[in-house]
Amino acid sequence: MDNFKFHNPVKIIFGKDTIREIGSEIHSHDISKVLILMGSGSVKKNGVYEQVIDSLEKYGIDFIEQWGVTPNPVLSHAEETLEIARSEKVQAILAVGGGSVIDEAKAIAAGYYAPDIWSIFEKTYKPTNALPLFTVLTISATASEINSFGVLTNDTENKKWSFGSKYSYPKVSIIDPSVQKFLPINQTINGGVDTLSHIMEFYFMGENEESTLAINEALMRTVIKSIDELVADPLNYDWRANLAWCSSLALQGITGVSMGGGEFACHRIEHAISALHPTVAHAEGLSIVFPAWIEYVNSLKPHIFERWAKNVWEADSVEAGIEKMKEKFKFWGAPVSLSEFNIEADEFEGIAENALLIGEVGKIKELNKQDIINILNIAQ
Amino acid sequence: MDNFKFHNPVKIIFGKDTIREIGSEIHSHDISKVLILMGSGSVKKNGVYEQVIDSLEKYGIDFIEQWGVTPNPVLSHAEETLEIARSEKVQAILAVGGGSVIDEAKAIAAGYYAPDIWSIFEKTYKPTNALPLFTVLTISATASEINSFGVLTNDTENKKWSFGSKYSYPKVSIIDPSVQKFLPINQTINGGVDTLSHIMEFYFMGENEESTLAINEALMRTVIKSIDELVADPLNYDWRANLAWCSSLALQGITGVSMGGGEFACHRIEHAISALHPTVAHAEGLSIVFPAWIEYVNSLKPHIFERWAKNVWEADSVEAGIEKMKEKFKFWGAPVSLSEFNIEADEFEGIAENALLIGEVGKIKELNKQDIINILNIAQ
Repeated sequence: MDNFKFHNPVKIIFGKDTIREIGSEIHSHDISKVLILMGSGSVKKNGVYEQVIDSLEKYGIDFIEQWGVTPNPVLSHAEETLEIARSEKVQAILAVGGGSVIDEAKAIAAGYYAPDIWSIFEKTYKPTNALPLFTVLTISATASEINSFGVLTNDTENKKWSFGSKYSYPKVSIIDPSVQKFLPINQTINGGVDTLSHIMEFYFMGENEESTLAINEALMRTVIKSIDELVADPLNYDWRANLAWCSSLALQGITGVSMGGGEFACHRIEHAISALHPTVAHAEGLSIVFPAWIEYVNSLKPHIFERWAKNVWEADSVEAGIEKMKEKFKFWGAPVSLSEFNIEADEFEGIAENALLIGEVGKIKELNKQDIINILNIAQ
Repeated sequence: MDNFKFHNPVKIIFGKDTIREIGSEIHSHDISKVLILMGSGSVKKNGVYEQVIDSLEKYGIDFIEQWGVTPNPVLSHAEETLEIARSEKVQAILAVGGGSVIDEAKAIAAGYYAPDIWSIFEKTYKPTNALPLFTVLTISATASEINSFGVLTNDTENKKWSFGSKYSYPKVSIIDPSVQKFLPINQTINGGVDTLSHIMEFYFMGENEESTLAINEALMRTVIKSIDELVADPLNYDWRANLAWCSSLALQGITGVSMGGGEFACHRIEHAISALHPTVAHAEGLSIVFPAWIEYVNSLKPHIFERWAKNVWEADSVEAGIEKMKEKFKFWGAPVSLSEFNIEADEFEGIAENALLIGEVGKIKELNKQDIINILNIAQ
């Protein structure tokens, strides 16, 4: 079991009717003016916006609203928002939305004290401070509400890159699973596939960390069970809540204990796909790439992939485990091949080059350009 | 799934050769003088003391040493230490030892700003501040290194009571499992039984929190496996490390998510036993009481106890699960009956009254005096 450090200071407030606690939480941090960052307006339909505004007003917290965060959030919008945050002299960012909104909020909060936002993602500048960040989560998927990582797309250079900093943990995140019950079911499934992928990225790094492996198997089985139950009954609160909590835990730190930072080859390949094809949702790219990657690399570390097949999918071989996972994805309506998005073989070289732009891809097997093309061919 | 809050700001540094990081961590909190609290001297034999002192000196941190914390730490020693902390004007407490040392350190740290220490345990005073606390753990068992709770025995009134405060989380805890490899095996087993008990205290409260239940089952199975492996090979680092991490996680918050604060009837009864019989180690009291309590209450909530029997013990009935647990305890050398300590039936009324001193005992079944006597009779 390798040495590790564990530190996650985020305060989570979880459950029904908890959104109205946001004003009190921000007030207790002596903050009197925030920038509220939001997406395209769904929070006005599901009642979240109204609860947030009521709570801020109750505690006398001044605010300005900034709308328009996109599903794959872009640098240009973050830069525009940063200018507003500076000119309005806000003391904190309040992200109200899903992972995209929270990710962009992290970029703005850290960018506030940086020469420019993209330098943080290029790693030419290391954050030394950030505006305090609060979040109200509306879609469980990326776990951005509980960790210090953010992903942003540089929309002039087609680069979808990530950063993390100890200054970027939200102070408080509110997760009310009941506001997710009217999401289109495919968004719930996307969130679940994303969660499953995050856990797998750590799990396959395992060697002798029985504690982490056992926790991760427990979470993977719970995610699969939760999605099955929600496909049958999208209004079931308890399964919705269980899925939401698994989603947060997947990237909270606990699943990565002693796992060397995780594998994340599939995330890197997926980021390249959706950087070049923004209509592919992150989770859709993952459900396509993961089975192909497992097929390509499992023989290099057979014991962990065999354990996964047995303990997560009740399958007696890795091949059977992959097949069961793909069948499950198909049953949920998640894509399992690039052809479903009309992404053809002549684009694979470009995707592979994009994935390699930021450096090495993969740990269980370090993937070169041809390896990535081979994986994309399996995923075709 | 009930609403919950989750917030655990403790920074954990875990692994081999990590003790020498303590000086740097304390220094980074701008602290230049600490009181080191320790037990009876075992840290001078296993090299821990030397590593701590070297690290403090390297970072120019002044210190005074206070020895003599006992296995069931007592109020009189905490009060004596508090006087020293005040007169020496230390800025923080550094606990170097097991759960007893850390628990007493928490009482001193919170007591520093209180009218007196015991008022915190009596709940007549609620802490509003505490000295910063750092810990170097030498025995994994109580999880005190990762949470805000402490237990202390009022040695003039025979009361073993607990407290918790958001000011009582350690800032940093260092867990080097390799220093535990030369512990007598019965101390390792005690730590494991304590850990298992903590997880069960939350688990049996479960209803529909599949995520928490699945995590807790994963941890219980890992604890049992780890102890089995360490009984066979006490020097195995990986199993030692896995057990240590499970022990911390058991009371870190994650196992109690949406579990209503836990059951803790067995802990209350055990505290009464070891308050009156200080030679009974906490874990020894627990391995005696828990099987009896399960036998007494399981019919009130059969689904959760049946699930426990099946998923933790591979048993097809609660009775068979209890039997398997008792057989496992015996195999490890842990006691399963009060008679092993010559505690006789004529003392049961006194134990029951002691357990009830601080208020209601039990949630799945609220236990009155006769109930506790009945459980003690089963445990005879």
